[in-house]
Formats: sequence, C-alpha cells, structure tokens
Amino acid sequence: MITKSKPLPPHKPSTRQAGRIQLISLPGLPEIRKGDDLARMIFQAAISAGIAFEKNDVVVVAQKIVSKAEGCVVQLSSVKPSPNARKLAAALKKDPRFIELILRQTRRIVRSEHVLIVETHHGFVCANGGVDRSNVPGCDSVAVLPKDPDKSARNLAAALKKLSGKTVAVILSDTFGRPWRLGLTNVAIGAAGIPVLRDLRGQRDRNRKRLHATILAVADEIATAAGLLMGKSDGTPVVIVRNYSYRPRNDRAARIVRPPDEDLFR
Amino acid sequence: MITKSKPLPPHKPSTRQAGRIQLISLPGLPEIRKGDDLARMIFQAAISAGIAFEKNDVVVVAQKIVSKAEGCVVQLSSVKPSPNARKLAAALKKDPRFIELILRQTRRIVRSEHVLIVETHHGFVCANGGVDRSNVPGCDSVAVLPKDPDKSARNLAAALKKLSGKTVAVILSDTFGRPWRLGLTNVAIGAAGIPVLRDLRGQRDRNRKRLHATILAVADEIATAAGLLMGKSDGTPVVIVRNYSYRPRNDRAARIVRPPDEDLFR
Repeated sequence: MITKSKPLPPHKPSTRQAGRIQLISLPGLPEIRKGDDLARMIFQAAISAGIAFEKNDVVVVAQKIVSKAEGCVVQLSSVKPSPNARKLAAALKKDPRFIELILRQTRRIVRSEHVLIVETHHGFVCANGGVDRSNVPGCDSVAVLPKDPDKSARNLAAALKKLSGKTVAVILSDTFGRPWRLGLTNVAIGAAGIPVLRDLRGQRDRNRKRLHATILAVADEIATAAGLLMGKSDGTPVVIVRNYSYRPRNDRAARIVRPPDEDLFR
Repeated sequence: MITKSKPLPPHKPSTRQAGRIQLISLPGLPEIRKGDDLARMIFQAAISAGIAFEKNDVVVVAQKIVSKAEGCVVQLSSVKPSPNARKLAAALKKDPRFIELILRQTRRIVRSEHVLIVETHHGFVCANGGVDRSNVPGCDSVAVLPKDPDKSARNLAAALKKLSGKTVAVILSDTFGRPWRLGLTNVAIGAAGIPVLRDLRGQRDRNRKRLHATILAVADEIATAAGLLMGKSDGTPVVIVRNYSYRPRNDRAARIVRPPDEDLFR
C-alpha cells in the first residue's frame, strides 16, 4: 500500500534487474545415492555439459537429490506405525507407514481432509510434510526433507566455490501446493549466499509513491523459475539461474516462513 | 503420490524442457494511459530495444499496465463509501473509499484482520481484491484488476500476432501474497495461447513410478519467473519468456482457481 509522498526529484527507474536472465538446466546427473558428493557430481555434470559456473550464478537444486545424498530415504517396510498414524491412515485411506513417516516430520497438523497438510519441524506448511515417493528408486522407498535445508545449501555453496573458484548461491527447491490455486510450484526450502526476501518498503514506485507493503519473495521466485526446467518427470534436478542481479549475503530460507502470529491461515 | 507400477521398459527422461530459457525484460515503455494501444506499444518498445518476437515467446504483462490501458483506474475522490465499507474501514484503520472499491471487486470476504483478503468476482483470493495504489500516477488514483483478464490476454496475443507475424502466448501477472510464507510472488491472472496447468498424472518419474498427484502450475511458474525482472519499483512491466517448450493452445488462467469444494482454506 502507498501513502502520499512529498515532492521528490523525478523517479529514476532502477535498471538493476533490467536485461536478461538465463535458466540453464543441467543434464547428465546420475541417480544420487547416500553419501554421494553432490557438489562434485553437479560440478562434473556441468563440465560435461560445457557449462562453466560464473560468479553469482544461483544453483537451484531439487530437494530430492539432496535428501538422497544425505540419506534421508526411508524404507516403508522398516516403519512401524503408531496407533495415531493407524487411525489417521484409516480416515485418509493411506498407508499407515506413510502417515507415520509424515507425523515424524510434523510439528502440527494443519488440515487432515483428503490430504494431510502439516507444519514440518522446519516450519514449512505443505502436503505430507514433504514426504514423497516420486523419483526415489524402489517401490518401498520414500524420501523425507533434509533435516536442515539451509545448512545443506550452505555446504553445497561452499563446495561449489572450492571446485569452481566462483562464488555461487544455492537454493534448495521443493514443489508445494497452494491454497486457492491449483497446481504445484517450486519454492525455496533452503538457501545460501543470496537474500531470500527483497524488501522494497520505503522505496518508491515509478510515480514516486512510497511502497508500503511490498516484500518480494526472491528465493521462491528463483526456485519457481527453475521449476520451468525441472518438471517432476524430466529428470533435471539442477538448474542454474544466471545473470540475476543480487547482493550476495548469508541468509536462510527459514526466514521465508511467515511467523505464526502474522499468519491468518494456520 | 505414487503407487506401485507394473514392469515397464526403461525410463527415457523427457528432454522437452532441457536446455535454456531466457527471461528478457522490455525497457522503454512509456506511462500507459486509458485507451492506449498496449500491444502496439509493447511491439514498438521491443523494436526499439532490438528485440524481435519469436514463435512461442510468452509475453508476460504486468496487470497494472493492462488496467491502465483498459481504464480500470478509479479516482478515490469519486468513490462514495457504503455504510458497510465505513464500518470495515474503521476496524481496519483504512480509507473507507479504498475499502469501498475493494468491496466492489469482492464476491466473498475471506479474512478481515490487519489486511482484507477477499475472493474477487474472478475467483482470485488476494489481499485488497487486487485494488492497488502503486505505480498509478496521482495520489488520488488506484487501479483495479481488469474485468476479464483472460480476454485481455487473448486480445493482446491476437494483436501481437498481427503486428509481429509470430504466434506468441500472453500471461497477465499480478503480485499476490501467500499464506504460510512471507513475501509476494507473481501469479498468472490471465492467459492466452498456453496451457496454464501441466498435468503429469499418469506419467512416470525417472524410476518408472506413476505420478499421481502432480499438476504443475505452469502459467504461475512463468509469471513468477518474469517477476524476477519486474520488481515493483523497477518500471519494467513486460518480460518475454523465450524458449519455454509448450504446446500452444487456448486456455484460461481462470482455470487455475481451485474449485471451492476442493479448497481447504476458504
């Protein structure tokens, strides 16, 4: 929202985001396994594809391959559902072991109708607490979210810097649904080396009105853009976002989570 | 979600989204006024910037300039607030004329705490019903959403085709907030020439598991990606998304609105 502003010199449009951004998908990554050196595999896939990292590239990495590398894959057959999970599973007509895994990720159940929407221990509100069977080999295997996705992103950024000599940002993405609108979009669940929010409050629009309620969810925007080249069935879990202009700094995707006391849809 | 699938030939990863996507911001658009031929102005700005439209470019246009061209700008001083608007404005500590304008766009109030979140007559759920003071010249002026944003997109796509000789898709974008996560992102409120959702249900992931609950919100993804070059204070309301692979067809962004009976957060 905007309020009246005093006379000011004519507006100079910002040109810092003018120009072109490239989204580059990284082909050729093999199936990722527990303990794999993901940064090295990404770096080598880039070299094989003739892609050299550039300063301030944002490397968007699908959560699933990070979970695999970190061993966040669980065999359903090893899961013993609690009575609570059994009850919920019966109501939702789901596998009680799957529900048990979700509940282990859960701080709070937000909705439990048709689908189980929970707040994870990270604070993310999403369907099934991020527990997902897709793109995990084996019918018995499911992936859960990395324990600390911001830390995972920091580790990847540091390793990619060592390997490539370039300072890059890293965003871990996952596909979340939304209320009110159909379809999934990528969001950022982890970030390193890039501000996750762009606070325009106090800046002025091109008519010199002061912007009051404008914070842009930059890390989510970047994750979503990368999603255009990911596609759940495409097998391209890494996308490089090049030429997006930002001031590198430490930040955490955890900061995108809306504080509960400001959230009208808990 | 995924279920067991019968043995199948080895998965061939789709390559249709592999490669590079370019986001190209369009500089040099003048302030848009009621009755302006927006398609012609976009076309001419592109020529001046040395950008030639290519087949299947997706032209993302910020809602605000469409509203201006279509005369969807209202002088607050001309608005007579209803008793209901006055009451709500007092509770929210807002200008009653502003609230009145929101209510005129409103089919249903979703939340009215700190901020007014409504379902517009289009079906969109957003803060202030899309009524917005930013980037509208004059302290007394506010913009409302176009009456039929899908029609606006269709008209722009048809006119750009005539001018450029190229079939392009058009997406009208606006910045919406989200529950659970801070910050605004662009979403598609109008679309023409491109499928707005990509339904992967029944397709298989790279491990040949069948994808069950995966519909990607493509038009929102594209709008969000374009948002990286828009920025509310940057004065770049048109972004061309190039080399995104899709099958052109008629569709409507209205289709992204989640049917009320499937929506758990109404």
